[in-house]
This record gives sequence, structure tokens and C-alpha cells, in this order.
Amino acid sequence: MEPEQQLSKKAAKKEAAKAEKLRRRQEAAAAAPAASGVAGVSIDPPDPLAANYGDIPMEDLQSKAISGRVWTTVSALTEELKDRTVLIRGRVQTIRALGKNMTFFTVREKGYTVQCVLVAPGIVSSQMVKYAMTITKESFVDIEGVVKVPPQAIKETSQQVEVQVRKIYCVNRAAAILPINVEDASRSEAQIEKSLETGEKFVRVNQDTRLNYRILDLRTPANQAIYRLECQVSNLFRQYLLDEDFIEIYTPKLTAGTSEGGAAVFKLDYKKQPACLAQSPQLHKQMAICGDLGRVFIVGPVFRAEDSYTHRHLCEFTGLDIEMEIKEHYSEVMDVVDRLFVNMFDKLNERCKKELEAIGKQYPFTPLKYMRETLRLTFEEGIQMLKDAGIEVDPLGDLNTESERILGKLVLEKYGTEFYILHRYPLASTFLYNALS
Amino acid sequence: MEPEQQLSKKAAKKEAAKAEKLRRRQEAAAAAPAASGVAGVSIDPPDPLAANYGDIPMEDLQSKAISGRVWTTVSALTEELKDRTVLIRGRVQTIRALGKNMTFFTVREKGYTVQCVLVAPGIVSSQMVKYAMTITKESFVDIEGVVKVPPQAIKETSQQVEVQVRKIYCVNRAAAILPINVEDASRSEAQIEKSLETGEKFVRVNQDTRLNYRILDLRTPANQAIYRLECQVSNLFRQYLLDEDFIEIYTPKLTAGTSEGGAAVFKLDYKKQPACLAQSPQLHKQMAICGDLGRVFIVGPVFRAEDSYTHRHLCEFTGLDIEMEIKEHYSEVMDVVDRLFVNMFDKLNERCKKELEAIGKQYPFTPLKYMRETLRLTFEEGIQMLKDAGIEVDPLGDLNTESERILGKLVLEKYGTEFYILHRYPLASTFLYNALS
Repeated sequence: MEPEQQLSKKAAKKEAAKAEKLRRRQEAAAAAPAASGVAGVSIDPPDPLAANYGDIPMEDLQSKAISGRVWTTVSALTEELKDRTVLIRGRVQTIRALGKNMTFFTVREKGYTVQCVLVAPGIVSSQMVKYAMTITKESFVDIEGVVKVPPQAIKETSQQVEVQVRKIYCVNRAAAILPINVEDASRSEAQIEKSLETGEKFVRVNQDTRLNYRILDLRTPANQAIYRLECQVSNLFRQYLLDEDFIEIYTPKLTAGTSEGGAAVFKLDYKKQPACLAQSPQLHKQMAICGDLGRVFIVGPVFRAEDSYTHRHLCEFTGLDIEMEIKEHYSEVMDVVDRLFVNMFDKLNERCKKELEAIGKQYPFTPLKYMRETLRLTFEEGIQMLKDAGIEVDPLGDLNTESERILGKLVLEKYGTEFYILHRYPLASTFLYNALS
Repeated sequence: MEPEQQLSKKAAKKEAAKAEKLRRRQEAAAAAPAASGVAGVSIDPPDPLAANYGDIPMEDLQSKAISGRVWTTVSALTEELKDRTVLIRGRVQTIRALGKNMTFFTVREKGYTVQCVLVAPGIVSSQMVKYAMTITKESFVDIEGVVKVPPQAIKETSQQVEVQVRKIYCVNRAAAILPINVEDASRSEAQIEKSLETGEKFVRVNQDTRLNYRILDLRTPANQAIYRLECQVSNLFRQYLLDEDFIEIYTPKLTAGTSEGGAAVFKLDYKKQPACLAQSPQLHKQMAICGDLGRVFIVGPVFRAEDSYTHRHLCEFTGLDIEMEIKEHYSEVMDVVDRLFVNMFDKLNERCKKELEAIGKQYPFTPLKYMRETLRLTFEEGIQMLKDAGIEVDPLGDLNTESERILGKLVLEKYGTEFYILHRYPLASTFLYNALS
């Protein structure tokens, strides 16, 4: 907005880059003799370092031999590995040249990123830098290099170390032009907004592009984390229930009739007989209980041919379903559900710190508020809270989405929790366990 | 077959029963004064022990109160609990009267069975015995009693202790006549064959009856064990792969096109658009790998509209599917599969002893033979073994079911294993990993 200020910023950046370049050249020169003995010699083809870079021929990638080489994952690159030589395999996310003889790479593996740098002459030849510059974004590379800890924090990458490249091989070259730049797809809305203000103008990757090129969009740190988190959600659900003597069962999805009232059904032809896709494992989990399995759960797809286009309706989703024998009182179910969820929330916070952080960077959120022992409100108490806030609700009906939202807000204000159980619904309405289907 | 022998057997049985009856009466008389003080008094209505038995009224079962009572599971009833008073809840599997004042129950919970006995007069009144005799098979009962260790082993039950009943309440009464007697449904073919020889003539429950009344058939010890085992199979599959840095993903079952060549597909109408049920998660698991998830697995339903009626074809089954990045050599996949299966076999043998035993009682089997390190044969070696045995096979084709069966037999004879990996299939044929789909 203020041209002078921007200009001086740019000038300062230029100066800093220059100083950085100098520092790196000195570093490379110092490292060179030990590595190859060609420092100070003017480089001419053929390059004596030619074996240290290049595309790996396809035939060498076809299960020829087991080399015994050990790769370090990008996520494992930390200060503890300082000055150690490592071998990493990842995708080139960005390439940035600083003149003819220096280039910076961001290498990404499973959403984790690290800065790699090539500086010639010395241990790296200018031909090698030239070669590296031809590697397209999203190509797979094998990099051998030494881990260094730079004096300043690296903003652009997840890992706070740098790899000084000794060898670089391209394992598989990506197309030169891709519909999505993963770096662009990884930015938060706030970063994009800010870039529009400062004139940097980051590209916004729209939802349709993301869905049309899903495999590229999957590579963002947030999406990588979402899949790891989803995996942990079902894993923690299972582990808790298995410890509580539940059995996981696998129920049929192809059924002869509808499995639950109220939900529309997908119909299909089953060898000339009419069949449906199960809208719920309700029937089969109840059969399991009648069959004396005692406590069962199901994790699997549920199909609902509903025409509602809300964020609460999906035609296909993965349902986490439980069913159990009750000894004396339905509160036994609430006890299980209460402990199950608190356990899942606790363990997700504990085990998935990095994943939650990665998601938060792109999609900021505040941690879930929940109590050690889950708040249980009766339907009547819920209705009363709504009434006290001036909302009229049918005491014998169901809560609509809007009333539920308001009640959630009231509960958060009064009890400081976003997770609670509402029980003793009127008979005319749905039952508690439907909320779990 | 020999009438005299049978007669003398019967006579001996009668004598033994008489002696047993006497022993029990003496035991009951000895226990009586301590328990109720009514021993030796001739019993007339109203019964002073009336509170110790009866049907629980429906209203008392509807989440009225939490009593804090603790139930002991039938599977936990062992000699360690000798002389302890326990409360159990289970189904009455059989009732056998020995005169007016003595009755034996078999109570079953989750496939485990225990013998319960009521002997009057004394701590149990003859009215109580009379009441107990009215309880129908498969009814739910709450029994309070004392654990005793009988002098002889009990053949008919899984638990080797007996419960001397003090109190008995019927929680839920089953219909008097049921289409399946669980005791009948639990017998092995060998037991049935033998009973036909000896004239005891056990009832054979046919497959159609079992399927028509699945919830009754599910209650047999073998079926209970099969479900527990199935749960452990997927649990062990998951746990091993999660430890090996795999991610469990959930892939869509509703797809726009067919997901794999060669398999027939179920078609359906998806809101006026043609859709299919996924025949394999192949496409989506490969997308996950292209999306940098590295190593993924899927446990879920797979649908194939095939018209083959063999034991190898199912229209719907639960697939255990893996997909992984290869660093250098396809043997990396074999390494994972090898360790995965050996780990699963080991842990199933270790953790599911009781279940394997319960299944073996009804469906005898010999333990799986497998090696600590799985045998790997190339397709060529397999073909050679078949050739050596006089079987001609197309060296560029696939193995048919019959050749596979013979090869399995040859491998078992030569290497002593029923589990091996056949790799390096000709390109024209299927790939190894398809065997895992």
C-alpha cells in the first residue's frame, strides 16, 4: 500500500539474500576439498561429479536388486541428526534458484517438508545445479546430503534443519505443468487474504479443482493429517471397545428390505430379485445381541439415498455403531459412550499433536472443550434451558437442527463443554442410540 | 448293538444316579439349617422361601434403578471360586428333573455353559423346584448360588464347577417351543453319527433351519467362537499394519464405473445416474498411494455380482486389502505379507485357544501348519513341482483351482507348510497382490 515502505522491504530482502549467498559459498568452499578435491578448479565438461546426479533409468527401478540402503523419513529430520549424512526420498515441492550455482529445494514426504540446498562449485558441480534445476515439481527424488542447522528458523518447511545436497537422483519425473501446485493448495484462507493485501497474490485452489485432482490435493500437510487422524479415530474407537469386551462384527450391506424407517434407500437388482443397500446395521447388530454376542460394534459404510443437501446428510458414510446388552439400566449405555468418547478425545490430543497442528495451520480451530465426566442432561432439562433463553420447543417432539445448535451454545456457556449427552427423549421421538448410528 | 451290554450300561447308570441323588440330598440337608432354618419341617404353602424365586415383573426391568449387583460371567466360573456365592445371568439351555425335588439346569452365557442344581428340601423349597421346572429353554435367568467342585468331571458343560442354586429369577421367558434346540445345534457330525449307532438318536439341525433361525444358531459355542475369532483376525491384521506405519482408509463403495476388470458388477440408480458397487478398493487405494499416504489398508465390504456358485465366490465379502509404496523391490511387499500372516497365525493360536477349542469340538480340524519364515516359491518352481508330479500346466497362464489344490498338497508334503507365497507370476496372468484383494 505504501510504495516506499515496500521498496525498502524489497531492498532489505535483497541485501539479506546477498549475505546469505556469500555465507553459503564460503561454507561450500570449506566443505569441498574433503568431499571431492576439485575445489578451485574451473569446471568444464565432462563433469567428474557426474555419477552424483541424474535420472534413474526405468530398468533400474524394476525390482532389480535390494541395495540395503536405509532411507531417513523427512519427518525424522531434526537437530539430533546434525552433521549426519542421510538419504531421503520425497517429492520436490518447490525449486528456487539463486543465480547459476545455487538452488534451494523443498522436499516433501507424507506432508512433512525440508529445505535442501545445492551450492557449486565444490562438492557440487555447476552441471549438477543445472541438472537439479530441470527437475519438475512433484517429481520423486533420492537425495543424499548432510543435515545442517541453519542460524535462522525456516518458515516455509515443517522441519527446522536443512540438507546440504551431495547427490541427487530423480526417481520419477512429474509432468512439467500440473493443475495444482501443492504449496498453493496447502495455504490457509488467512494467508491468501493477507497475500492479496500485500500484493504477493497467492493462488487460491478452488474446491472443484481439488476434487478433480484429488491425488494432488491429498498431498497437502492438512489432508495427510486428516487421513492419519481419521485412521486414529476408528482405531481408538475399536481399541476402547475391544478392551470393554465388545466384538467387532461385519454386517451385510446388501439386504432384502429397508433396514430402518425414515431414511430413503438405494435399490438394486440382485440377480433378478429386488435388493437394497443397508441404511444402518441396526437389524444385524440386534440379531447379534439376540444371538448372545453380548456387546458388538460395527465400523463400515452406511448408504442413504436422501435428497437433503445439508452438511449433516451424506449418501454414503462410514458409520461407527455399537449395540449392547443392558443388565439393569440404560445408563449402562451412557457410561460406555461417555468413557469411549472422553478416551478418544484424550488419546487424539495426545497421539496426534503433529496432525492437529498441521490441520490447524490450514484450517484454524480451537481445541474441543469437554469434561472429564461427560455432562448428561435430560431432554426436559434441555427444553427448559431453551425455554429460559426464550426458545419454544415441542416437549414431546424432536429438536430441530436450529434448536440443537442453540442448545449446544447454551450448554457451552453454562457448563464449558462442547460434548454432552441428552437423554430421556420422549418416546414419540428418536432414541439416544440413534445418535450413534 | 449288543442288547445285554446296553442293558447293563443302563442299570449301572441308574445305580450311579441313585447314589448321586442320595449324596446331593445329604449335602442339601447339611447346608439347610445355616441358610434358612426350615430344614426338617414339612413344606406347605405359603412358601417362606417365596422371595427367592419367580419371574421378574416387566416394569422392574425398565431402567428403574441401578442395584450395584455384580454378575460373574459363566466363563469365569472355575475351581478358584469354590464355595463362593456368585450371581450369574444366562440362558437356560437344558432342564433335567430327577424326581420332584431335584432339578439340573445347564445355564449358558456367550457359548460357555455351567451346571446348576436345585435340591429340596432345605435351602430350596419343593415349590421353588416346581417353579424352576416351568422355566422354558433359552429363557434368561438370574441365579444366585454357591460354587461347588463335583467329584467327577462334567461332560456336558464347558465349566468344570457346579452352582448350587439359592435363588432363581426368570428375567425373560422364551417361547415354549423353539425351532432349534441350541444343544442339538452344538453337536458335531461325529457325535450325531455315533448317537444313531447307539440308538440315542440326536437331532440333526439342517443348514436351512440354522439360516432361517440364525439368532438361535448363533448361540452355539462354535458360532460364538467364530465371531470372536473373526473379530481377532481383523484386529490382528490392523494392529500389525498400524505398527508398520500403514494407515487405515475408508474408500467409497458407490462408484461411477467398474473398479476392476474381470469381475461382474452390481449396478444401481444413483439419483438418476448410473452407479456401481465397488468390486475392489483398488482404484482408491492406488489414489491414496499417489496421494503420498505411503502405506494404506482397507477392511470393508466388496461386492461381486458373479454367477459362480463355488466356495470361492461370494457376492459380498469383507476384504482385507493393502497397498504400499515400494522403495526398490517387490519383495518388500512379500516381506510385509509374510510377517503379517505369521504374526496373525501366532497371535490367533495364542489369544484364541478357547475359541479354537470350541470350534474344534463341533468342527474338528488340525492346526494350520506354517513356517517361521514363509516359504516363497516362484511361479516357475511351482510349475516344475506340478510337472514333476505329472501335471501339465501352461507356463504363461494362470493356475486353475485344481492345480492350486494339487500344488498346495505337494508343498505340504515337501516343505510341511500349508501357507506359502507363489511369486513371479507371468505378466499375462494376475499379480501377487490380487491374491490379497
